[in-house]
Amino acid sequence: MQLNLKTFLERTESYLPQNAIVSRQADGKLFRYHYADYCRRTRQLASALAGLGVKPGDKVATLGWNTYRHMELYFAVPCLGAILHTVNIRLTDEHIAYIMNHAEDVVLFVDPDLLPTMERVAPSVRSLRHIIVMDDRPAPLGDCDYESFLATGDPDFAFPELDENSPCGMCFTSATTGDPKGVVYTQRGLYLHTLALCLRDVLAISEHDTVLPVVPMFHANSWGLPYAAVAVGATIVLPGPHPTAADILDLIEAERGTFCAAAVTIGVELYAQLKKKPRDISSLRGLMLGGSATPEALMKRFHNEYGVPILTAWGATEAAPLATITHVRRSVFEAGPEERIKVRVRQGIPVPGVELKVLDDCGKPVPRDDGHPGEVHVRGPWIATEYYRDTRSRAGFVDGWWRSGDIATQGSDGSIHLIDRAKDLVKSGGEWISSVDLENELAACPGVREAAVVAMPDARWQERPVAFVVPVQDSDELDPAHLSAWLARRFVKWWIPDRFVFVPALPKSGVGKVDKRSLRERAATLAP
Amino acid sequence: MQLNLKTFLERTESYLPQNAIVSRQADGKLFRYHYADYCRRTRQLASALAGLGVKPGDKVATLGWNTYRHMELYFAVPCLGAILHTVNIRLTDEHIAYIMNHAEDVVLFVDPDLLPTMERVAPSVRSLRHIIVMDDRPAPLGDCDYESFLATGDPDFAFPELDENSPCGMCFTSATTGDPKGVVYTQRGLYLHTLALCLRDVLAISEHDTVLPVVPMFHANSWGLPYAAVAVGATIVLPGPHPTAADILDLIEAERGTFCAAAVTIGVELYAQLKKKPRDISSLRGLMLGGSATPEALMKRFHNEYGVPILTAWGATEAAPLATITHVRRSVFEAGPEERIKVRVRQGIPVPGVELKVLDDCGKPVPRDDGHPGEVHVRGPWIATEYYRDTRSRAGFVDGWWRSGDIATQGSDGSIHLIDRAKDLVKSGGEWISSVDLENELAACPGVREAAVVAMPDARWQERPVAFVVPVQDSDELDPAHLSAWLARRFVKWWIPDRFVFVPALPKSGVGKVDKRSLRERAATLAP
Repeated sequence: MQLNLKTFLERTESYLPQNAIVSRQADGKLFRYHYADYCRRTRQLASALAGLGVKPGDKVATLGWNTYRHMELYFAVPCLGAILHTVNIRLTDEHIAYIMNHAEDVVLFVDPDLLPTMERVAPSVRSLRHIIVMDDRPAPLGDCDYESFLATGDPDFAFPELDENSPCGMCFTSATTGDPKGVVYTQRGLYLHTLALCLRDVLAISEHDTVLPVVPMFHANSWGLPYAAVAVGATIVLPGPHPTAADILDLIEAERGTFCAAAVTIGVELYAQLKKKPRDISSLRGLMLGGSATPEALMKRFHNEYGVPILTAWGATEAAPLATITHVRRSVFEAGPEERIKVRVRQGIPVPGVELKVLDDCGKPVPRDDGHPGEVHVRGPWIATEYYRDTRSRAGFVDGWWRSGDIATQGSDGSIHLIDRAKDLVKSGGEWISSVDLENELAACPGVREAAVVAMPDARWQERPVAFVVPVQDSDELDPAHLSAWLARRFVKWWIPDRFVFVPALPKSGVGKVDKRSLRERAATLAP
Repeated sequence: MQLNLKTFLERTESYLPQNAIVSRQADGKLFRYHYADYCRRTRQLASALAGLGVKPGDKVATLGWNTYRHMELYFAVPCLGAILHTVNIRLTDEHIAYIMNHAEDVVLFVDPDLLPTMERVAPSVRSLRHIIVMDDRPAPLGDCDYESFLATGDPDFAFPELDENSPCGMCFTSATTGDPKGVVYTQRGLYLHTLALCLRDVLAISEHDTVLPVVPMFHANSWGLPYAAVAVGATIVLPGPHPTAADILDLIEAERGTFCAAAVTIGVELYAQLKKKPRDISSLRGLMLGGSATPEALMKRFHNEYGVPILTAWGATEAAPLATITHVRRSVFEAGPEERIKVRVRQGIPVPGVELKVLDDCGKPVPRDDGHPGEVHVRGPWIATEYYRDTRSRAGFVDGWWRSGDIATQGSDGSIHLIDRAKDLVKSGGEWISSVDLENELAACPGVREAAVVAMPDARWQERPVAFVVPVQDSDELDPAHLSAWLARRFVKWWIPDRFVFVPALPKSGVGKVDKRSLRERAATLAP
């Protein structure tokens, strides 16, 4: 018996076809159907792809939002034996062309509003044979629209049995320098990752859930939620194109969402939007935030004002993406909400199946005292062991372990606490300063909406921290002295940034993370 | 990355070593230690076994109750690469000798009170080289006691990395005729079975649980609970030698058990004992009963009087053992307790990863109308595809599917409802009668403690049902006319048994199931 993703689809089709998949459309209206329809159309789509000549191992690219058609592709392509390559819509044209050429994509599914990108990029993708527009009417570009294409398939198509080590998914991760690096997922890897997400002590995804994956489907498998939701037949609500914080909250309220997953930056916006216009989000059993560390202040606000626990996980494109999860032990849980938050701000312990080590500069495990930072290394059945046809694999992987480039300390309970990306760590006078810890404390300061800390060169200390601070609108009480005093309550003097720069917004990368590289460039110009 | 059971042990050792393992001893006192000790001793035990010359693939047998030492063997033997062969202590001497010879066991671990069995059997087991008594003082038989043996090992022993297809466990299942049949489990199979048990929509075993596996560790891996409990670091309470219903209830009350698993016959005894002497069992979130169908009446009593839901699963030694689980869909759950019970009396839907079909005599899937019985076939990553060196494999498996010999109908939701063992089905005038349905209805009749229905030969109808009924003590209101009238409220006339035989107890097999073979023999003598 090979571990194949189709096993999950077929079980839900046969035993749990009743729940809905709801998808917000470009006009704001909700499209709604049930798993029975979803599974039938997914088979039909796989059949249509086979009819188009897509063979096992071929790459089928998507450039799209979180929609029900994208959900159909999530299973149709892998279950056919082909490889689903989810292209990040926020990359530059140059990078999109690079990754599509590197992957050798043969078919592309594209959302109508993203056609302008493909008009520019498609001509330079040498391998591309077909473009299908995810719409129900003809578009200026592309072979045909999705619905016409689907109609060419057989809804009773039988999925093949595949070797579990067959590649079935692909995603590129941005590199510090140079082109994005490709990661390939196997049937086996995603099968096991899916089971892990549904464990009660991980995300506990259940048929009783209404899951809202706000994290994009073009970003690390939308954290695996589409696979997990289908595996248990959970209701799924997709936010569609260009969702705003208001759209997301409206969906949670209207559909009684129980589990939502988004980038921390979206979490910040959700809270701000809730303050502007209250909604009933009492159905939420968990809000999973990731991509960067969730500020403790935000966590407390969601918990105290809305009764919503924030779930913290850690992972990456290389890890499919889940590697660790906060686990609140029974004894801590019973000790009360304050104690739970202390655990929830940490990135937690490895998901069952994953092995982890935190190594210092000499490659030795750091002591479990939260005082010694090291780089997090992980391995496991769904964690990459190389980049796709890329010489940078040699630097990124050691003996089957992935070197994450993330710097963490480890506590006495073994849980990790991420303090920085290796490249973002501020080293002042030979000692490390955690930009993440400073950012969290700044975010907790009344009047601060967001903050980012980076290093600027310093003649005496090599590096010194600079804080970029986004004030809450109409907040005029902020000044550097006030912020210094705020931080001094908690940190030693040499951790306090030398400069506080007030900005209207932080630059963000294609996946919604703060773009620290550009901040560092700006900080360098501030150096005395 | 190979799927190895050691991954679970090492994760719990490193990140969740704080919970307790509690084990009831022969004198009734509780032994108590923590996972940190458990993991250290398990490594030491594996090391001691290696020192004894146990090699990968060697069979290490156990003849024992549910104790902490047996728990240590559950991981030490597989993680060393050897095969844990759990011998059913309730088998005849002849069958124990047969299976130990067939398995070629080289080492045996035996509980002190079971030594008399081994005194009789051991001389005829040709492969057996060492006997170790699970005690802390020397015994009349055996090489040495467990604690002295353990002391020869290294508590820092490193487990080897094993091919995931390596055999790691073995259990024999009783056959209708002839010797027991052996089933071999692999690292991969038990790894995936363990994950399945911890899924929120299966048994949802969690670190927050206090698990009481009453189902014997010599019977189908104690339904996989020892592996699942260790994988998530759950508190575990082991009932030790000769546990009575009173012992089990005392443990649930004292240790605040959250999840208990036992044979249906034990469930009946637990209820009777609760009526005699009330205990606080409010900590229980679930009581899993199996081995046979749970009578609806018992389910309602536990639910209405104690607020404890009964979980129904279906499986067998061949399925490691879990193949299906009752799943109460969200819509049914919200419809209320009455609707939930209607689902919970059924055996449910396949556990994620398992595939199932119910086939009629012609090998065609039965319609989903609950009106057409068929034999349940299953396959999956942890389900056997053969018996160990046994020509009966040919009859038991077809194209990788295991033929269970269990007869079920399938409902419109796909869930199965077991109506009989193939050999227990009553066929009257060419039509089937479900002994299980009749037994459940009889068990719901006031004054009835237990009932079993079997076929007796009949000249006109080929077979007719006979009911063996155990009255509640001091109940004198039962007579055949009363019972016929009780059943006539629900069943057509030709389903009503021709004879009702009152007995003080039902004969039980080695695994606590009603011995229908002997009842059939007795029924045959009643035929007119």
